[in-house]
Amino acid sequence: MHKKNLLYAQSGGVTPVINATACGLIETARQNKAALGRVFAGKDGIIGILKEELIDTSKERKADIAALRHTPGGAFGSCRFKLGSADESKAHYARLIDVFKAHDIGYFFYNGGGDSADTANKVSQFGARLGFPVQCIGVPKTIDNDLPITDNCPGFGSVAKYVAVSIMEASLDVVSMASSSTRVFVLEVMGRHAGWIAAAGGLAQSKKGDPPHVILFPEILLDEKALLKKVDQAVKKHGYCSVVVSEGVRDQQGRFLADSGRRDAFGHAQLGGVAPVIANMISQSLGYKNHWAVSDYLQRSARHVASKTDVDQAYAMGKAAIQLALKGRTGVMPVVVRTADQPYRWKVGEAPLDKVANQEKMMPRRFISADGFGITAAARRYLEPLIRGEDYPPYDRRGLPKYVRLKNQLLAKKLPPFKP
Amino acid sequence: MHKKNLLYAQSGGVTPVINATACGLIETARQNKAALGRVFAGKDGIIGILKEELIDTSKERKADIAALRHTPGGAFGSCRFKLGSADESKAHYARLIDVFKAHDIGYFFYNGGGDSADTANKVSQFGARLGFPVQCIGVPKTIDNDLPITDNCPGFGSVAKYVAVSIMEASLDVVSMASSSTRVFVLEVMGRHAGWIAAAGGLAQSKKGDPPHVILFPEILLDEKALLKKVDQAVKKHGYCSVVVSEGVRDQQGRFLADSGRRDAFGHAQLGGVAPVIANMISQSLGYKNHWAVSDYLQRSARHVASKTDVDQAYAMGKAAIQLALKGRTGVMPVVVRTADQPYRWKVGEAPLDKVANQEKMMPRRFISADGFGITAAARRYLEPLIRGEDYPPYDRRGLPKYVRLKNQLLAKKLPPFKP
Repeated sequence: MHKKNLLYAQSGGVTPVINATACGLIETARQNKAALGRVFAGKDGIIGILKEELIDTSKERKADIAALRHTPGGAFGSCRFKLGSADESKAHYARLIDVFKAHDIGYFFYNGGGDSADTANKVSQFGARLGFPVQCIGVPKTIDNDLPITDNCPGFGSVAKYVAVSIMEASLDVVSMASSSTRVFVLEVMGRHAGWIAAAGGLAQSKKGDPPHVILFPEILLDEKALLKKVDQAVKKHGYCSVVVSEGVRDQQGRFLADSGRRDAFGHAQLGGVAPVIANMISQSLGYKNHWAVSDYLQRSARHVASKTDVDQAYAMGKAAIQLALKGRTGVMPVVVRTADQPYRWKVGEAPLDKVANQEKMMPRRFISADGFGITAAARRYLEPLIRGEDYPPYDRRGLPKYVRLKNQLLAKKLPPFKP
Repeated sequence: MHKKNLLYAQSGGVTPVINATACGLIETARQNKAALGRVFAGKDGIIGILKEELIDTSKERKADIAALRHTPGGAFGSCRFKLGSADESKAHYARLIDVFKAHDIGYFFYNGGGDSADTANKVSQFGARLGFPVQCIGVPKTIDNDLPITDNCPGFGSVAKYVAVSIMEASLDVVSMASSSTRVFVLEVMGRHAGWIAAAGGLAQSKKGDPPHVILFPEILLDEKALLKKVDQAVKKHGYCSVVVSEGVRDQQGRFLADSGRRDAFGHAQLGGVAPVIANMISQSLGYKNHWAVSDYLQRSARHVASKTDVDQAYAMGKAAIQLALKGRTGVMPVVVRTADQPYRWKVGEAPLDKVANQEKMMPRRFISADGFGITAAARRYLEPLIRGEDYPPYDRRGLPKYVRLKNQLLAKKLPPFKP
């Protein structure tokens, strides 16, 4: 039997566990050598495929592939590059098929969010049309948790855990000194369009009155007066106020607070960051001393405090992608199906790529409390299992995580150059 | 034998391990009940002592005291409140002695930095002068690592580990996508006057060219041109540049960059944060897409990624404080003495408080590389052992650390009120 090769690519913003998915995929492919060829990976994602920069993962040691399970970042590189429609980006699709042909690729795995699902789906259709059928499998990944159909997205649970642990810890710091020092702490987290990550901050609460006292969601236009009242109440009641704010919070006119036209003394547009805007709003109006943090990429790479549920699911998605390939499927994506909340149970399901593509799953309004500043019991029931369990990376004797850097050896090129 | 009570207070900014010191102190006192009375703690530090708000730690369960070892923040509360000279703050010193008398305090333990050492020393002298001798023991704590005599300060090692792990992780994220997205990442860390915390970022490097590529210290006035050149070189060579910047970085005129007079569109003084200033400087001049993070209190409370060396030393300082008290010592502080670098060995020593008080230990110039943007082998030799080993808190079934909140029951007051 002729064994076709496999091509894997990482797409979009990386996560603490996207490499765990790569690990599941490569390890499972290696366990099925009778049916499957070598696994190649696009260097820096689909851009590398277009440039025919293909990494030969079969050159990597077994232990290094295993170490992907606990290594953050994107081990083969990723990119933000969206292919247009089959007409708009015809040359790109044709080039992909040329690369697939040149390297005997029978399976394409695209590990990303909604855009990537769309691309994988189009590649599948384009290949069929050109008489070079390739099994295209989407593999879910996004910290934003905004993919439809799948119960949750690998990557989100670990970011959620980072945010919940961080706001819990920082709040213990603030409450220690609030009587004579900082009263208000603001933590900015990611999630430009959907408030899932901000909502995760609410998991730090185990009883009423616990921090964070305020969560600001992109789904709720900011009511400044109501925010100030809420902060003031928290300070009066608890001595301090702990706030989690999504980078995507918008004002009543729908403008992002982080780009609200503020300029510095030199007339430069302000430097970004919504936490300082919120902190400033509070100190100007209420006079409370504040501190703020912007976790930015730290949250997205904090593999040291990953959720075990998330790592397991990320691995399972990679494994399932190979199993779908072995079953002859194309135009599909493995997904997480929740079968029970308590005790939490999940299994791997399957979704057609055209149902996943180009859709964003927002936080349902029923997950946000009536006043718009917190999460509900329903949100908690959904979110809690996703941060459960610890999965520490091994540490070296210096006291640092043993993250792997792969050799990433490229295959010899066979085609003329192409400029993506 | 009449057993005098003990009074413990936390002072200044809290750390991930100041409660480990409290744990060592209280557990050791409890093991010496034959000689020592009860351990009380000042609520919110010395302010609570002045207000006669004393927490009776003997009301706390053994398991809860044990849990202090892994709980960040300051379990009894802390404050920033500096007593002046014996003349300036006579009423305050007299009040302290009144409180000590009223509650039969024979031992005062003040867990803080240089200012606290000074206060503890003055209280010791004042008590003797008033005919009410109290054994006053300073207990070292500061994330800034700026105390003299002690080889390092409990609290610093865990912050150092957080910074090294975080910049290592975020750099793995950046390098994954640098070819088409963010080229420069800037992480702001604490250390207004001394660059120890920023230096710790350098521990993430295991070979030449590893991130962070640039470290900005408060000890080195910023040479903007040299910085831009260094960043550009890193991007050209490695594809990206990872920067750690101390909040205390100053310009050539010695002004803090974070308060460099920038104003927003409304004329408000800028909102603080040196990371966005550096990131903006880079993007304005070099045009590289950037991201920045400000870790603020997260670094100071991240007990989830504490250094085992640090936790062990923090606990040992608390234990040693009691042992010094049992030996009849006053006006002293236990310190960490390094006896060997490789393998790292340390023991507990003792320093007179007047030698510790009111001095800041800056980074020696020989710890900073010749170009001012990195750390030397000597710095690495000093810093490395301090982040060694992991000491995870236990987690609950929700996936969150089991941090303890004490009952903090106050003793009945015996004195008239006093306004600090």
